[in-house]
Amino acid sequence: MRVGVFDSGIGGLSVLKSVLEARLFAEVIYYGDTARVPYGPKDQITIERFSLEALDFFKPHQIDLLIVACNTVSAWALPAMRARTDMPIVGVIEPGVLAITQDTPKNASILVLGTNATISSGRYERELKTQGYTSIKSLATGLFVPLIEEGILQGPLLEACMHHYFQDLQNAPDVVVLGCTHFPLIISSLQGYFTHYFKHACKFVHSGNAIVRHLQEHHHLSPLSNPPKVRFFASGDVVMLKAQAKAWLGLEQM
Amino acid sequence: MRVGVFDSGIGGLSVLKSVLEARLFAEVIYYGDTARVPYGPKDQITIERFSLEALDFFKPHQIDLLIVACNTVSAWALPAMRARTDMPIVGVIEPGVLAITQDTPKNASILVLGTNATISSGRYERELKTQGYTSIKSLATGLFVPLIEEGILQGPLLEACMHHYFQDLQNAPDVVVLGCTHFPLIISSLQGYFTHYFKHACKFVHSGNAIVRHLQEHHHLSPLSNPPKVRFFASGDVVMLKAQAKAWLGLEQM
Repeated sequence: MRVGVFDSGIGGLSVLKSVLEARLFAEVIYYGDTARVPYGPKDQITIERFSLEALDFFKPHQIDLLIVACNTVSAWALPAMRARTDMPIVGVIEPGVLAITQDTPKNASILVLGTNATISSGRYERELKTQGYTSIKSLATGLFVPLIEEGILQGPLLEACMHHYFQDLQNAPDVVVLGCTHFPLIISSLQGYFTHYFKHACKFVHSGNAIVRHLQEHHHLSPLSNPPKVRFFASGDVVMLKAQAKAWLGLEQM
Repeated sequence: MRVGVFDSGIGGLSVLKSVLEARLFAEVIYYGDTARVPYGPKDQITIERFSLEALDFFKPHQIDLLIVACNTVSAWALPAMRARTDMPIVGVIEPGVLAITQDTPKNASILVLGTNATISSGRYERELKTQGYTSIKSLATGLFVPLIEEGILQGPLLEACMHHYFQDLQNAPDVVVLGCTHFPLIISSLQGYFTHYFKHACKFVHSGNAIVRHLQEHHHLSPLSNPPKVRFFASGDVVMLKAQAKAWLGLEQM
């Protein structure tokens, strides 16, 4: 089975990592729209337009399933994308919500972090409310994205950025939803922050793990014996994307 | 005379402000490639491709002169753009260097700030060396851009970001070149930082002022009696661009 993984840039590599480790597919084609990244601060019409163009990119590659490894696209463009093709398209929000409902009591307090576009869509909040959760707070923390893209995964500048966003939180959440595929890269720093300021160990929900679980349960996929073959494509400089994949995921095979 | 002003996004508004105040043109058409911003972290081929597409955008508007109000484009794409048209195209780097040479002794120490792409081009450094300056340091400070786009123009997060970039500077520069059209928006904070840490008042070179001076001296333009008519266009959400123009420049007429 050949799967496509689409992200606005390199954030989706955190999802790719989980997908590769789970060995659910024989072939993986990763496409990052690195020339036009980020999508997070942009408007719905632009996000939808770019996402439909990504579908066109995958057409000649004849994939069997598409993973949208980007919360911003998952929040805004899935209906338009699904209207354009019969191929199954899996976003990250539905699996993320499913992962929460399977492990989290209804009275838990949930903090959703994401880009401006993801948070303003209200998608996580709506889906979680439908599932019976009542204590949900959403926070647009979009500046984590350029910091992570610059390789700043810890240290004083990231601390200052976390404080900028979290200083007004009254209580530590029980569950933090990493509603942007960049955010797993700073999970240690986030954990450190919440432990330090609230003396409270939060649980973190990671799109990559959630999507693997979703694929196993809903698409009945189980591990193959061989590691998948991976190919990388980008709308910008693919050499840069491959270098980042290598650094972040420890991938040798490219 | 109808002039076009092109930027990757909203940074060029700082140049537009100077151009509007100088009243050198009867009509100004501003185009921001807001759907694909930022250019600063991207590769040369992508920057060149997008810049040539911007030329195509301006074609039906029949402008007499194009101001490239973006250092990244000025650093990488001017030769390709000039090869495509006979219309005069003015970038921001040459006027910036000219402004320095007119006011600054050759033994002054100069600090050039810009995006990754601008700094890696080495354009400012090369041009300044050609003019006889020897003490030049260049620093890629690209994270100022998303902070400014988020409206963070002062405060602890910007302080942390400045410290991240400037903590290893041994001495305060005499001249700081704001080699990104976003940076004039944080000039007070930059001034405050250098004054506080180095007890030294630096001179700041601003692309907007430099370009106006260049247009007056080299294109023999002088002020008109009426304020120019301005129209805004964007590859993304133009309503958002207009709102930012209004907020940043105090423009009512749109």
